Amino acid sequence: MIEVLILPDKKKLKAEKGTDLLTIINSSGIFMNSTCAGEGTCGKCRVKILKGGYKSRSAQFLTKEEEKEKTVLACLTIPESDLELEIPYSSRVEELDILEGEVSRQELEPSSLAENIFSPEPIVEKHFLELSPPVLAEPTADFERVKTALLEKGCPVKEIPLQLLRRIPYILRGAGWKVTVAVCDGEIIDFEAGNRVKENYGIALDIGTTTLVAYLIDMEKQEVISTASSYNPQIPMGEDVITRIIQVEEKNSMQHMHSSLITAVNKMIQKMILEKNVSGNNVYILLAGGNTTMTHFFYKLPPGFIRRSPYVPLLGSAVVLTARELNIRISPFAKVTALPCPSAWVGGDIVAGVLASGIYDFSVLSMFVDLGTNGEVVIGNKDWLASCSTSAGPCFEGGGISSGIRAISGAIEKVRISNGKVTYKTIKNKKPLGICGSGLISLTAQMISERIIQRDGKFISGAPGVTEKGFLVVKGDETRYGKDIYITEPDIKNLINSKGAIFTGIFVLLKELGLTIDNIQRFYISGGLGTAMDIKDAVYIGLLPDIPLDLFVFLGNSSITGEKMCILSREAKNITEEINKKMTYIDLSSNSFFMQEYTASLFFPHTNLDLFPNVRKQYEK
Amino acid sequence: MIEVLILPDKKKLKAEKGTDLLTIINSSGIFMNSTCAGEGTCGKCRVKILKGGYKSRSAQFLTKEEEKEKTVLACLTIPESDLELEIPYSSRVEELDILEGEVSRQELEPSSLAENIFSPEPIVEKHFLELSPPVLAEPTADFERVKTALLEKGCPVKEIPLQLLRRIPYILRGAGWKVTVAVCDGEIIDFEAGNRVKENYGIALDIGTTTLVAYLIDMEKQEVISTASSYNPQIPMGEDVITRIIQVEEKNSMQHMHSSLITAVNKMIQKMILEKNVSGNNVYILLAGGNTTMTHFFYKLPPGFIRRSPYVPLLGSAVVLTARELNIRISPFAKVTALPCPSAWVGGDIVAGVLASGIYDFSVLSMFVDLGTNGEVVIGNKDWLASCSTSAGPCFEGGGISSGIRAISGAIEKVRISNGKVTYKTIKNKKPLGICGSGLISLTAQMISERIIQRDGKFISGAPGVTEKGFLVVKGDETRYGKDIYITEPDIKNLINSKGAIFTGIFVLLKELGLTIDNIQRFYISGGLGTAMDIKDAVYIGLLPDIPLDLFVFLGNSSITGEKMCILSREAKNITEEINKKMTYIDLSSNSFFMQEYTASLFFPHTNLDLFPNVRKQYEK
Ligand code: FES
Ligand code: FES
Repeated sequence: MIEVLILPDKKKLKAEKGTDLLTIINSSGIFMNSTCAGEGTCGKCRVKILKGGYKSRSAQFLTKEEEKEKTVLACLTIPESDLELEIPYSSRVEELDILEGEVSRQELEPSSLAENIFSPEPIVEKHFLELSPPVLAEPTADFERVKTALLEKGCPVKEIPLQLLRRIPYILRGAGWKVTVAVCDGEIIDFEAGNRVKENYGIALDIGTTTLVAYLIDMEKQEVISTASSYNPQIPMGEDVITRIIQVEEKNSMQHMHSSLITAVNKMIQKMILEKNVSGNNVYILLAGGNTTMTHFFYKLPPGFIRRSPYVPLLGSAVVLTARELNIRISPFAKVTALPCPSAWVGGDIVAGVLASGIYDFSVLSMFVDLGTNGEVVIGNKDWLASCSTSAGPCFEGGGISSGIRAISGAIEKVRISNGKVTYKTIKNKKPLGICGSGLISLTAQMISERIIQRDGKFISGAPGVTEKGFLVVKGDETRYGKDIYITEPDIKNLINSKGAIFTGIFVLLKELGLTIDNIQRFYISGGLGTAMDIKDAVYIGLLPDIPLDLFVFLGNSSITGEKMCILSREAKNITEEINKKMTYIDLSSNSFFMQEYTASLFFPHTNLDLFPNVRKQYEK
Repeated sequence: MIEVLILPDKKKLKAEKGTDLLTIINSSGIFMNSTCAGEGTCGKCRVKILKGGYKSRSAQFLTKEEEKEKTVLACLTIPESDLELEIPYSSRVEELDILEGEVSRQELEPSSLAENIFSPEPIVEKHFLELSPPVLAEPTADFERVKTALLEKGCPVKEIPLQLLRRIPYILRGAGWKVTVAVCDGEIIDFEAGNRVKENYGIALDIGTTTLVAYLIDMEKQEVISTASSYNPQIPMGEDVITRIIQVEEKNSMQHMHSSLITAVNKMIQKMILEKNVSGNNVYILLAGGNTTMTHFFYKLPPGFIRRSPYVPLLGSAVVLTARELNIRISPFAKVTALPCPSAWVGGDIVAGVLASGIYDFSVLSMFVDLGTNGEVVIGNKDWLASCSTSAGPCFEGGGISSGIRAISGAIEKVRISNGKVTYKTIKNKKPLGICGSGLISLTAQMISERIIQRDGKFISGAPGVTEKGFLVVKGDETRYGKDIYITEPDIKNLINSKGAIFTGIFVLLKELGLTIDNIQRFYISGGLGTAMDIKDAVYIGLLPDIPLDLFVFLGNSSITGEKMCILSREAKNITEEINKKMTYIDLSSNSFFMQEYTASLFFPHTNLDLFPNVRKQYEK
C-alpha cells in the first residue's frame, strides 16, 4: 500500500501498489477531466507531482516546460512510493452551482409553451377511505373492501405488491378502518393509517451526460418544492456516451456505470427531502428523462448496439419498475420510469422537450433544437414529427475550448469588443473563470464584426488584441485563478465545426422533408449552454437559421420541465407516448448530402450567403 | 445432545436435550398423526418406548394396558437419555398412493360437465418470430421490433421483466433474429433462440388441507402428461385449518407454514418434469386452488381474521406473482396464481369445482357439494350462485374413526353384510388396512339394513358380530398389520354428526333461498372420499337428499379438474372470476334455524322421515 496526498485539497488516500493515479484520484470524490476515460488519449488528466517516485508514460502530450515541473497525465502514471501531488483547477470538473432551477426565457413567453395547458391530474393519486368494518352479513375480504371503496371514488385498482398486501389487515384494524391509499396505474403502492392524502411527492430527474438535475414535486399542491443538481458520476468513465458504452463493453463495468448513477440520484433525493422535511416513504414516483444511452444506463440495459451501425437501442418504450428494484431510496413500491426514446440518438430528454415546447400540438410548423454535445433537431406539427441528430461536440458546454467552462458562476456569458477593448459579463458577476457556450457565441460574433477574425475563423493578422497564443479576453490578474482567459484559432475551428453541424442538421432535415428554412414558423431552443445566449449572435455566426428573431423561443432545460409536467399530469405523460410513436428518425451519418452541406457550412455564417439574407447585409456593412 | 432410534424404520436422530419426541420425529420426515399439532389434546401421537429414560405427562389419555407397555404421547414426552422407540402404523399418516390422476364417474357422463366446452386457448402463448434484422432506414429498438412482430400475430404485449429484457439483444443476434417468445397476460415471460413453441407447459395444483395433487400439463398438446401427489406437509402443524391458523399466530410460524408447502410443491414438480424430461424453464404457469386458508398460506398472507367472527379473509381475488417471488422452481418469470376465494369458508377449490361442474352456466337449478372436512355447498344456475359451509369433521377422509384411513390402496371401500358375515372390497384389492369414507358409508348402510345398529346409531344388543369393542369388520389375521378392523359406537356417532352437518347445510341453504329439495334438478358431488362411494347408500343414511338417483353426478377431485381447465383455456380462467364475483355466502354459524335442524338430522336418515320419502319405504320394509 502507498499513500497519496492530494493538494490543495489535503486529501490523503491509500492505494494498492500498481494502481494508476487517475483511479486513485477518482476514488477520492474529486472529479477530474478525463474525456478518454483513462485511455491516455485525451491529455486532460494533468497533475503535478510535488514529492515522491513514479513511473509515467505521459511525455508525448506534455510541453518541455510541463515536463520540467513534473506535470504528468494521471492515467498514465503509477506511483512507486508515497506521493504528494497537486491537481490544477484546469484539470478539474468545475463545481456545479447554477444548474438547479434554471430560469429561462420561457417566462417571457409562457403562452407559447405547453407547460400550463394540462389538467392537474398527478400520476399518483392518494385517497382517504373511511370504510365500514365487516360484519357477519357483509364479510367481504379486506382487499376487496378497499378495492370497492376506491372504485366508488372513481379509482379502479387491480394490483398490489404482495408485501404491502400482507400488512393490510393490521393497518385497517389498527387505524379503525380509516386509511389512505396511494395508487398509480391501477396498482396500490402505499397503504397508511389515517388521512395522509397531503403527503404525495414525486421526483423529476434529468439525466444529462454531464449533469443531473432533479426536482422534488408536491403532487398535491402541484408545485416544485426543492431542486438539486450534481455532475454525472459517470464522467470519469468517459466524457461522451460513446466512450462510456465502450467502457461498459471492454471493462465489463455496467454495474458500476449504473450504480454510480443511482448513488448520485439518491444523494440528490436525500438533500431535497431533508431540506423540505419530507418522508422518503411519501415519494411515490421518480420520472427520468435522458438521452438513449443514459436511459439504458439508468435501467442497466446493455447499450452496445447503440454505437454500432445501424444504431439500434434495446428499448424504445418506457418500462415501469419499482424503487426497490433500482435501489432508489424512496417509497419501496414507488414507480420508477424513464421517458421513452424514439431512436438511438434521440432520447427521452428530447421527448420531454418536445412536450414542454408544445410543438406536437401546433398547427404551424415548428422546430425544436437541443444545443448540446449532440445537437438533436425535431421538426413537425400536430400531425407529424421528424428528427435527426448531429454530433456537435462539446464546445457549447465549454468543452474543447482553451478557456471553456460550463455555464457556472464566473463564466463569461456576454462579451463586447470595441476598438480592441473587451468588456464582459460573468454569471452571477463573479470573477471570471472561463467562457461558457453563450459567452463563446457572443465573443465570436464580436470578433467577426470587429474584424478580428475572418469568415473562415482565422485571425486577421495585426488585429487588436491578437497575440501569438490567440485573442486575449481577460488578463490573468483579473481572473479567479490568475490565468489568462483567451481564445485560439483551434478553439474557433471547434466552434465552426459545432455550429456547422447543428445548422447542417437543420438544413438537411428540412430538405429531406421537402421543406426550406422559410417554412419554419416557430423555433424552440433548448440546452444548458447559458440562459443568456443572444439569439441574434447565434444567427449572426450561422448557428441558427436566418429567420425573423421573434420566431425564436429559448426554453432552458426543457427536459426537466417536461418530466415535471408528466408527474403533474397523466395527460402529459400519455402524450409522451404519442410523441415517441409519432417521431420518425432520419439518419444523417450515411447521408452524402449532409457531408457536402456540412463542408459548405464551415464558414461564418455559411459559404452560401444566400442562406443568410439578413445576416449578409450585416456582414457586407 | 441425545440420540433417538426410531423403529421399525431404523432411523437415528440427534436432538438437543429438552426437545419433545414429536418435534424430534417430525424432523425425520416420518409423518405422525397429530391433529392438535402437539398441544397434547388429541391423543393421536402414540409411540412405544423400547429403551431409555423419559419424562411423560401422557397418562390421562392412555389405557392401563398402554401405560404398562410404555406407550406415551410423543408431544408430551421428553427423553432423558438416548432412546429407542417404535411408531405404530396407527400413529402414522399413511403413505399416499392413489390420489394422482383420480378417475371419477365423470367419464360416464362427460356431457354434463363443462370440461370440454371451452376453446383451447392456453393461458400462456408461445410465438415463433422470424424478424427482419434492423437496417439504417429501419433501426427500431430491439424490444419494439419484438412487440411489433407479436402484434402482427394478434398478441399485443406491454411488459417484460427487466432481467429478461437485458438478455434480448444477445439472444436476437445469436439466433439470427429467429426467436420464440412466451407471453402471458400481455407480458413476455420467456425469450428463447430458435423455434421452441412446442415446449409450453403448466402446472395445475390442488392444495388440500390434507393432500396436494398436481398435474403437469402440455399446453401445446392440450393434455395432462404427468401427475403427482403428496401429503400437505403442514399436517404436523395441525390437522385442520383452524389449528394451523392458531399455530401461525401463536408460534409465529407463518414462514415455516408457507415454505414447507412450497418445498412439497417443488418436489412434486421435480418428480413430474424429470419423468417427462421436460425442462423446468419451459413451465410457465402454476395455477393453484385451495380453500381460503390454504390460499392464504400459499401466498404467505396473514390468515388470522379468517377464524374470528365475522370471518374476513385478507384476499378474495386472485393475485398474480412470479415463480421467483414464491421460490417455485419453474421458469423464473412464470406466473403463479391461485383461484379466487369467495369467502372465508368457500375457497378457490370450490370455484374450480363449480367451473368443472358447469352449474354456473345451466338454466336448471343445480347443487354442488364438496364432501370434505368442511362440507361446502353451492346452489344456483346461470343467473346466480349461493354458498354455505358446514363443519363436517374429518370422518369422510377417515379421521376420527377407529379404523378409519384415507382412500388409499388397501382401504375398504365397499362392504356387504349378510347374516353377520362381512364381505368387502379394498382399493386395488390390497390386504385391508382400514376403512375409507366410501367404505364407512357402505358399512353403515349395511349395518342399518341388517339391523345391527338402530336409527340413532346405537348397536342393537345381541346383533351378530357386535362385541364389546364394537362391530368387527375384518379380523386381524386378514389385515395388513395384523390388527382388527372394527367400528365403534363413537365412530358411528361421528359419522352421524358429519352426515347431519352436510345434509342440514343443504337443507338450510335451500330454505334461506326459499327453495326445497324438490327444486334441485342436478346434484354434483366432489371430494376425495373414494370414487367408489355408492350414492344410493349415501342417500340411505341421510347424507344426501332423497331425490331421484339419476340426478347425481360424482366429480371426484373437481378442484384439480377446474384448475386444469383454467390452464388450458383463458375463457375458463375468466369464468372463475365471474363465479367468484357472483357467489354470495350465507353464514350458518349464527343461524339458529341451522342449529335446530342439525339436531333433528342426528338420526338415520333423519328424525323427520317425510324428508326421505323413498328411503322411508326401505326403512319400513
Ligand atoms: S489522458 Fe488521462 S484521462 Fe484522458
Ligand atoms: S396429543 Fe400429541 S399431537 Fe395431539
